[in-house]
Amino acid sequence: MRMYDLIIKKRNGAALCKEEINFMIAEYTAGRIPDYQMSAMMMAIYFQGMTKEETCDLTMAMAASGEMLDLSGIEGVKVDKHSTGGVGDKTSIALAPMVAACGVKIAKMSGRGLGHTGGTIDKLESFPGFSTGISTKHFIEQVNRIGISIMGQTADLAPADKKLYALRDVTATVDHMSLIASSIMSKKLASGADAIVLDVKTGSGAFMKNKDDAFALAKEMAVLGTRAGKKTTAVISDMDQPLGNAVGNALEVKEAIETLQGKGPADFMELCMTLGAQMLVAGGRAESAGQAQEMLGKVIEDGTALSKLARFIEAQGGDAAAVYDTSLLPQAPIVEEIFSEKEGYVEKIICDEIGVCSLLLGGGRETKESQIDLSVGLILHKKVGDYVKAGESLATIHAGSKEKLTAAKERFVRAYTFGQNPVTREKLIKGILEGDKISQS
Amino acid sequence: MRMYDLIIKKRNGAALCKEEINFMIAEYTAGRIPDYQMSAMMMAIYFQGMTKEETCDLTMAMAASGEMLDLSGIEGVKVDKHSTGGVGDKTSIALAPMVAACGVKIAKMSGRGLGHTGGTIDKLESFPGFSTGISTKHFIEQVNRIGISIMGQTADLAPADKKLYALRDVTATVDHMSLIASSIMSKKLASGADAIVLDVKTGSGAFMKNKDDAFALAKEMAVLGTRAGKKTTAVISDMDQPLGNAVGNALEVKEAIETLQGKGPADFMELCMTLGAQMLVAGGRAESAGQAQEMLGKVIEDGTALSKLARFIEAQGGDAAAVYDTSLLPQAPIVEEIFSEKEGYVEKIICDEIGVCSLLLGGGRETKESQIDLSVGLILHKKVGDYVKAGESLATIHAGSKEKLTAAKERFVRAYTFGQNPVTREKLIKGILEGDKISQS
Repeated sequence: MRMYDLIIKKRNGAALCKEEINFMIAEYTAGRIPDYQMSAMMMAIYFQGMTKEETCDLTMAMAASGEMLDLSGIEGVKVDKHSTGGVGDKTSIALAPMVAACGVKIAKMSGRGLGHTGGTIDKLESFPGFSTGISTKHFIEQVNRIGISIMGQTADLAPADKKLYALRDVTATVDHMSLIASSIMSKKLASGADAIVLDVKTGSGAFMKNKDDAFALAKEMAVLGTRAGKKTTAVISDMDQPLGNAVGNALEVKEAIETLQGKGPADFMELCMTLGAQMLVAGGRAESAGQAQEMLGKVIEDGTALSKLARFIEAQGGDAAAVYDTSLLPQAPIVEEIFSEKEGYVEKIICDEIGVCSLLLGGGRETKESQIDLSVGLILHKKVGDYVKAGESLATIHAGSKEKLTAAKERFVRAYTFGQNPVTREKLIKGILEGDKISQS
Repeated sequence: MRMYDLIIKKRNGAALCKEEINFMIAEYTAGRIPDYQMSAMMMAIYFQGMTKEETCDLTMAMAASGEMLDLSGIEGVKVDKHSTGGVGDKTSIALAPMVAACGVKIAKMSGRGLGHTGGTIDKLESFPGFSTGISTKHFIEQVNRIGISIMGQTADLAPADKKLYALRDVTATVDHMSLIASSIMSKKLASGADAIVLDVKTGSGAFMKNKDDAFALAKEMAVLGTRAGKKTTAVISDMDQPLGNAVGNALEVKEAIETLQGKGPADFMELCMTLGAQMLVAGGRAESAGQAQEMLGKVIEDGTALSKLARFIEAQGGDAAAVYDTSLLPQAPIVEEIFSEKEGYVEKIICDEIGVCSLLLGGGRETKESQIDLSVGLILHKKVGDYVKAGESLATIHAGSKEKLTAAKERFVRAYTFGQNPVTREKLIKGILEGDKISQS
């Protein structure tokens, strides 16, 4: 078999068979197919697409390119959750303890972030001492003992995807539905969970700017997961404005804690309840979404979700006291309000611009080597549909220096658009897919 | 400017401007754009195409990527000729002396071959001692003195094309009309001639299997040449069966010599007369193709074309005695007839299969490093339309060993198809284009 012939085949519009895809991924991972042939193949796929079978074969080949995590040592149904990312997305930090408190085992691998804020791992490191650099043995033992653990992605998790994504990133072949779906799902399948709940974002702050694309991606991933024998559900949710109010690592952790105390923002709470319900149903702990939401409400009300977070943080070396006293989380030296010069209804918040503010404050990584300042970020006080009087505070900025504060403030004012008429708020949850069955809301 | 942005632009269907193409070619040649980005770009071009402006800009950028040969030291109009290649194509060896004998200066760069036989340079090396490794000074001086020289392509001739073609060759991006046209024409433009006559082949033994593609390529190249200020003519000629009767290096040289003696095969003679006429007109030596053909007929008849070949061979260190005594050319130890088992009209000769026979005999290169056996090859005695009796000789094989003879013979029989009804012969000349004016025959 020769890579050259496979490129021709795909270029001419034919589908590659399983053996061909396995050959391509194995040889590429081993360094025996050069980047320049693979990038030509990716561009050919960009134009010719892949069938469902090809996408599935590619996903499985990438999942199998490294270690497949064996979670059979954990009793019960393990449910994983994945978000396609957005601004203010601290979901895992509140959701995982809620779901674990209801008895579904959370054995999750997470990544660090590149962009406006850190990833879940970065955010969790706001707890002094907390570490995700634990062994697989520790990971499994901890999930069995307290029902929850989050570890960093091992270097050997789907290495083919890692190598291929880095190549696509510099050859303009990232934004293709089937390639995105197989990249995400290869890591999820290699992570060993029994069921997967996907949170696919749509809107100005999401990878998928429009709703139809988000549904298409959700469907493609749900089908991939189902074909691989995993119960897979996808929730399509709004990312046209930041999720919740907090943007920035420690600030988001604080908001997640408040949410576990029943004092979180309504939109963020709604998302946690929706995703959590799907996870409880997938994990066999609830018969219906309605029943699941009741259970989730109860573990917040009685404090068991919050204490689950504390036990989780402690088990991985973190200072659990910070769960009950958020002043122990990293604090920025400068805290300032941004007052509105305009008056009216908030019509739109350009989500990406808020992300850029966080990045300018030092809350995210511009390159893999960048150091994150966990303490900085923004708390939004006004969101789409809110009425703002001139002089009212739009947001509080937490900054490390005057220079960064100024840069972020300048950028911030570009994000908000005001109007004189009341604004209808977008629904947060756009739809839910189970396997390939869609219920659109 | 970033290559990434140029890939996105082309991928999304926009045209690159001249500055962008110049940047891309200069940086790629200098090694500052990696192969994996360029191969993604080539695949994007494969799908999105290039405008006439882009193709022209690419051609000029590649031509200018190395030394542009300065032929101003040669008096008169310099006319170059290029063939897209085929089986039995020994045209330059007969044509160049014919044209030079009529007073048009031939200052030509040629290449070695990869495939079923060698290129013009390999074939010319059948003359003991002949060398194309001469200096530019020698080259120019020789053209001024005797009107003809053929030198090897310098390493610095359109290096961008050399690098890009090698990449396209392994990434399935060779067979795209605009890329083929710009690759050929970049070398022609860098070679410094004032006018260019192109011989674009079509048929089973040609790169362009069908006639419409051949016309399209011819037109694209003719337009490129014209835009670059060179008088450019393209002849579209048949390559559905081998050209002439001889296939193999020394055997083809012998056939070219016979043609200069007026004893060549009719089809090969017709091609030389057609191309030669265009070259004499382009070189300002004849008013019309008809007048040019008369001149060409005369230099064959009176022996000046043959003696021009002898002087050319001698001037570059070769044994000119071999022009008059072809037994001095390399001779294969084994010479055998292939007798026909079937009877009937030759309906078809799969041209590529005859090429493979030559390759199996050792007459061509499988890789750049392969050694060519100049003595081996085939002389066809029957061509399309000829009637063959059972037991009659189809061809004479010249081989270096019994094993290679056997391998070639086995392959040979696959090439011929016979029928019981008379066959209409294809026209050799399919059409002629001047600039973008077509006359189809």
